Amino acid sequence: MHISELDTPVAVVDLDVMERNLSRAAEYAREHGIALWPHTKTHKMPEIARRQVALGAAGICVAKLGEAEVMADAGLERLFIAYPLVGEAKMRRLMALCERAQVRVALDSEEVATQISRAAAAAGHTIGVVVEVDTGTRRCGLPIGPEFVNLCQRVCDLPGLEFLGPMTYQGHIWGTPEEREQKIAAENEQLGRVYDALTAAGLSWSVVSAGSTPNLRWMHRLRGVTEMRPGTYVFNDRNTLGCGACTVEDTALHVLATVVSTAVSGQAIIDAGSKTLTYDRHLSGRGQGYGVVLEDPSVFVSTMSEEHGNLDLTNASRSWRVGDRVTILPNHACPLVNLHDELVVHRGGEVLGSWRVAGRGKVR
Amino acid sequence: MHISELDTPVAVVDLDVMERNLSRAAEYAREHGIALWPHTKTHKMPEIARRQVALGAAGICVAKLGEAEVMADAGLERLFIAYPLVGEAKMRRLMALCERAQVRVALDSEEVATQISRAAAAAGHTIGVVVEVDTGTRRCGLPIGPEFVNLCQRVCDLPGLEFLGPMTYQGHIWGTPEEREQKIAAENEQLGRVYDALTAAGLSWSVVSAGSTPNLRWMHRLRGVTEMRPGTYVFNDRNTLGCGACTVEDTALHVLATVVSTAVSGQAIIDAGSKTLTYDRHLSGRGQGYGVVLEDPSVFVSTMSEEHGNLDLTNASRSWRVGDRVTILPNHACPLVNLHDELVVHRGGEVLGSWRVAGRGKVR
Repeated sequence: MHISELDTPVAVVDLDVMERNLSRAAEYAREHGIALWPHTKTHKMPEIARRQVALGAAGICVAKLGEAEVMADAGLERLFIAYPLVGEAKMRRLMALCERAQVRVALDSEEVATQISRAAAAAGHTIGVVVEVDTGTRRCGLPIGPEFVNLCQRVCDLPGLEFLGPMTYQGHIWGTPEEREQKIAAENEQLGRVYDALTAAGLSWSVVSAGSTPNLRWMHRLRGVTEMRPGTYVFNDRNTLGCGACTVEDTALHVLATVVSTAVSGQAIIDAGSKTLTYDRHLSGRGQGYGVVLEDPSVFVSTMSEEHGNLDLTNASRSWRVGDRVTILPNHACPLVNLHDELVVHRGGEVLGSWRVAGRGKVR
Repeated sequence: MHISELDTPVAVVDLDVMERNLSRAAEYAREHGIALWPHTKTHKMPEIARRQVALGAAGICVAKLGEAEVMADAGLERLFIAYPLVGEAKMRRLMALCERAQVRVALDSEEVATQISRAAAAAGHTIGVVVEVDTGTRRCGLPIGPEFVNLCQRVCDLPGLEFLGPMTYQGHIWGTPEEREQKIAAENEQLGRVYDALTAAGLSWSVVSAGSTPNLRWMHRLRGVTEMRPGTYVFNDRNTLGCGACTVEDTALHVLATVVSTAVSGQAIIDAGSKTLTYDRHLSGRGQGYGVVLEDPSVFVSTMSEEHGNLDLTNASRSWRVGDRVTILPNHACPLVNLHDELVVHRGGEVLGSWRVAGRGKVR
């Protein structure tokens, strides 16, 4: 069956493109001696995690314990929960997970370090810990300074924990070549301060975990980085495209939709709204809206309701009728996948089957 | 177990509040002789649809055929698919659905009318049809005029279809009492034009379907409306609250979350981000962000990543520490529910169990 025969809306993955994306990142990591820990929050599917590991990934990242459990169920053995785990229920599950997988975690507070230490020591486990430090994202991560160094020291001292090194997140390193060079220089200055602070305290480290998809190709330019955690690169999306980290030929995930109404002039309504595409904005590039039509890139999803996508036809190069099909390149692959129970996989349009998004909805 | 003992993040429903919301709407509809067709896109759960019918709903609305199938599986018998269905695959499923439920549909094009007529006539079914007309939403619906009247006439003439009447959607009727009165007057002027156009063509109708939650209490003020399709009223949310259609005591759906990081000053990170709360904006009222903290309404979710919610503490009346729990009133209940496999139900905080969101992810 060809994808043009599928009922819509449907999220489809071009396996040829996906495999090329996976190979390219694996090759880059190998070439530069940087360990690849792909963030599986993007796809949430063991089928893809296994491919990433087969191509040489050192392990896989997850954001939630529930995602880690799904991956462990599927036989994935080296898991990095790159997120602070809090509370007794999570400690119990973390210890159970340690019985069947090699687990490491990220944290940025004494509270979390103490909780995990207590649980790990009681269960006889040693859990690798990276301590998140903020080099400019202002999300998680302690500022570079005494509080950060003290927490690293505390992780070294607490039973059941093994201090691995610092973790940073740099979603912002992209732009024009000039902007990028400035951002890389600024980041290296920050990283230098991290290393100086740790060294001054007599601490040593084996891991510096960094990165995201927009700067995947520039990780070797960041001083001292030993590992990277890109997620979106498996599929790419309109945002990856907009920040210059891929071409449209590198986008593997699309939503096929059908025009269901042209009653209001100047627009066409498709059967994919925010419950299919998400309200994630276009954060990079100059495009507006929630997705672009590949058959006519001057047409985009300008507004949405839950099940209605409004194609703005102001600059359309053709007319659209009820029943016409469109291929949407979505703004952001990761939350989109999380809306769908399964993705249909194909090669060059020929349907091979569908993969269940096994980690979908694992909010805890 | 009390909800304060639940692992987070978790979406919880206060059944006392929900039942009061359901009863109030049912009573209003009865009092004014308007048939209530609750839109189940909000909850997607047969448990709630059955309660709505038990309280007197004439039938239930859905947006997708897949949602209708879930409801039919659960024994719901009168289903209104308030969305244009397009394509052979959907025609086959629609006919199968007609074997086990009384189904009606909405449409706004000759293409859809012809497809459904052909399928229904071949299968020996007669399907009730409302024709969507645009009274100002500019989403679906033909403008009031000859094209609309011709389509209504065509629906009367086509085999397998029964013309029921016009359908409109008025999400915008709310605001200050003065604004509301202006909008009601404008809508009545539009509705008058619809009725005049149909009458002039010699067409008669039994149904005028309208409404949404923000204007639930004003439906009897809209001329000639015989049915209403509110959805969100079952739970209410920050947007319903913002447009004055409920009080905070009428909100039944909340997300319990935990502070996982306070490393960056001026903010606290909770374990609920866009994969738990959605990026739906606050469209009514003056609030910013993606949800408000009920324990301290001066604190709101200002930015998010997929699994991080950033509480802006600028105006916080207390300090927050890692491990603290918060109750979030989300902007928009409907897409939030669609992210969760189940909702935990409680009365006054005492957990009764959890209900599966059976229609979750039914994008087709």
